[in-house]
Amino acid sequence: MRRIPGGKGVVELADGQGGVETLRLLEELFFRRVKEHLKRVEGGVGIDFPDDGALIPLPGGGFLVVTADSYTVNPPFFPGGNIGSLAVHGSINDVVMMGGRPVAMLDTIVVEEGFPMGDLEAIVNSMLEALEKEGVPLIGGDFKVMPKGQLDRITVTTVGLGVARSPIVDKPRGGDKIVVTDYVGDHGAVILMLQMGMGDVEEIASGSLKSDSKPLTPLLPVFEKFAGYIHAARDPTRGGLAGVLNEWARSGGLLAVIREEEVPVRDAVRRFAEMLGVDPLYLASEGAAVLSVSPEVAEEVVSELRGRGFPNARVIGEFRENPKYRGFVVSETGVGGHRIIEPPRGVIVPRIC
Amino acid sequence: MRRIPGGKGVVELADGQGGVETLRLLEELFFRRVKEHLKRVEGGVGIDFPDDGALIPLPGGGFLVVTADSYTVNPPFFPGGNIGSLAVHGSINDVVMMGGRPVAMLDTIVVEEGFPMGDLEAIVNSMLEALEKEGVPLIGGDFKVMPKGQLDRITVTTVGLGVARSPIVDKPRGGDKIVVTDYVGDHGAVILMLQMGMGDVEEIASGSLKSDSKPLTPLLPVFEKFAGYIHAARDPTRGGLAGVLNEWARSGGLLAVIREEEVPVRDAVRRFAEMLGVDPLYLASEGAAVLSVSPEVAEEVVSELRGRGFPNARVIGEFRENPKYRGFVVSETGVGGHRIIEPPRGVIVPRIC
Repeated sequence: MRRIPGGKGVVELADGQGGVETLRLLEELFFRRVKEHLKRVEGGVGIDFPDDGALIPLPGGGFLVVTADSYTVNPPFFPGGNIGSLAVHGSINDVVMMGGRPVAMLDTIVVEEGFPMGDLEAIVNSMLEALEKEGVPLIGGDFKVMPKGQLDRITVTTVGLGVARSPIVDKPRGGDKIVVTDYVGDHGAVILMLQMGMGDVEEIASGSLKSDSKPLTPLLPVFEKFAGYIHAARDPTRGGLAGVLNEWARSGGLLAVIREEEVPVRDAVRRFAEMLGVDPLYLASEGAAVLSVSPEVAEEVVSELRGRGFPNARVIGEFRENPKYRGFVVSETGVGGHRIIEPPRGVIVPRIC
Repeated sequence: MRRIPGGKGVVELADGQGGVETLRLLEELFFRRVKEHLKRVEGGVGIDFPDDGALIPLPGGGFLVVTADSYTVNPPFFPGGNIGSLAVHGSINDVVMMGGRPVAMLDTIVVEEGFPMGDLEAIVNSMLEALEKEGVPLIGGDFKVMPKGQLDRITVTTVGLGVARSPIVDKPRGGDKIVVTDYVGDHGAVILMLQMGMGDVEEIASGSLKSDSKPLTPLLPVFEKFAGYIHAARDPTRGGLAGVLNEWARSGGLLAVIREEEVPVRDAVRRFAEMLGVDPLYLASEGAAVLSVSPEVAEEVVSELRGRGFPNARVIGEFRENPKYRGFVVSETGVGGHRIIEPPRGVIVPRIC
């Protein structure tokens, strides 16, 4: 084992893919230390760390939601968006997944010397446009340039600020239904095609496949209406649906059972995934959400979602208390068999977001 | 002119150095657009944009301070710290310079595949240690890996959160005295030496020259005591003291007059700068502050600073209303002559912070 502590070895690409390796590295490098750190720090705000976002109680009631994410997507322009709109939507969605209404954003941009000014302008314009559609102001930022050859084109970091009256605490419960709001895997499929040289941006876009990058703020009224019944919400980015379900099964000590044929996947994504031997459950989405919902309201939540611009929303499975298979995710196949959905590992698509 | 709008040309290294080129690029790429953007966005929080930090009114009174900064320093380890401690101190100082007490931090780390695990561990440990000394919890973060050759080692982005009762609005006034709290240029000199191959980390450290990277929170009680009298505060990082004074002279429509021999510069930094023909006024500090202070309390502020761990604090000049030389910074020389301190331009030290 090359792992820390001890500090031997080097960081590997898989360590940043959001799968098993990432969780292990974060656990050993951050979570354990940060837990101790938070104990030692006076005035700690009483938060469980392991996430890209945090909730801070506000003096007047409710919570401030803060999230930070760095985007490295390669290539920076893709059908359905670019690194700028992706970063804005991504941080908006991180705020929304915690039950927060986005109220402001900051950004930092690092570009490589020689990056085309027109591309930078297009990216900034996309960011501002995406923010304006959501009524969210950009209130600050930083800009740096790295010498040629020291950064591949551009990275964007966005900080999302929001306010949550009833935050979602990301704790699925036994019996909860698993609801998916939309098709999954679009973004991952598009970036994978581009990285494999299976067409340029125009060709792929003309094939009707594009990134699903979009803001998930239309979910907020549903979250508000069913406050207390939605126990966890995530957008399945790096690691895809398989990643989220495995993290939840592990953190909740539960067995997740899904019916794979219920998972909404676009035909084009399914065909492409089959061709490459990739499972769409592991492909990133940037405009879908997975919810863990009290069983008594699950169908009501689904019909509410369908009426609010998510016509593909559906229940795809449930969490069960099962001491023998706690932490597992399985798919029930038609004939009564089971297939284990392993947590993501290795490198499926580097620099997906 | 290769500049936007029009989107021609490419980003140049000088565009990210914090000097004339950066201000011009930010003006044309961001500030103008963001001003329009903020007008269009409903619920804008009423903030002047052009900064890495922002103030948001809190329901219970006072302001939330939020800052975001990406750190790209090369090399990541240097005498006096590393990219982790630099990022933590940098964001703490950005909060403090707005009159805020730091209360929490988030970070995102992007590393190159192959980065030594032990170095990453050392950087994370430094971050946590720096935070703990200040009693500031790390409450969230993100971690990504870029394939080998696509990023030179590591970048760190930190998000500082703070609370300000009496924020400092960064508006110097005519008549204000310019106060420097400490030696300037240490960080810039050290990074420049390393980048020029003038010794490795140990050799340079043994020569007693090291980065001044440190938290400026001890300034907070002084800011509180003299609330209303300190009209602007900045830590002179990229672009150095010359950069801050030129920005202030321009934004305030004032003439800044300093006495260069009053600016505290360590002998080692002065010798090194002379040898290379670099002006220490342009070298970055990461643990000093420049203040614009009402003249009637300036000496009191200085003696308060000296009693609180800043023995080198002193008045180095003042702002004057002078319609003919508005926006200029000049140094009065001993014999009654004047030298114009130009705003920084070009590339003095790339990846300084």
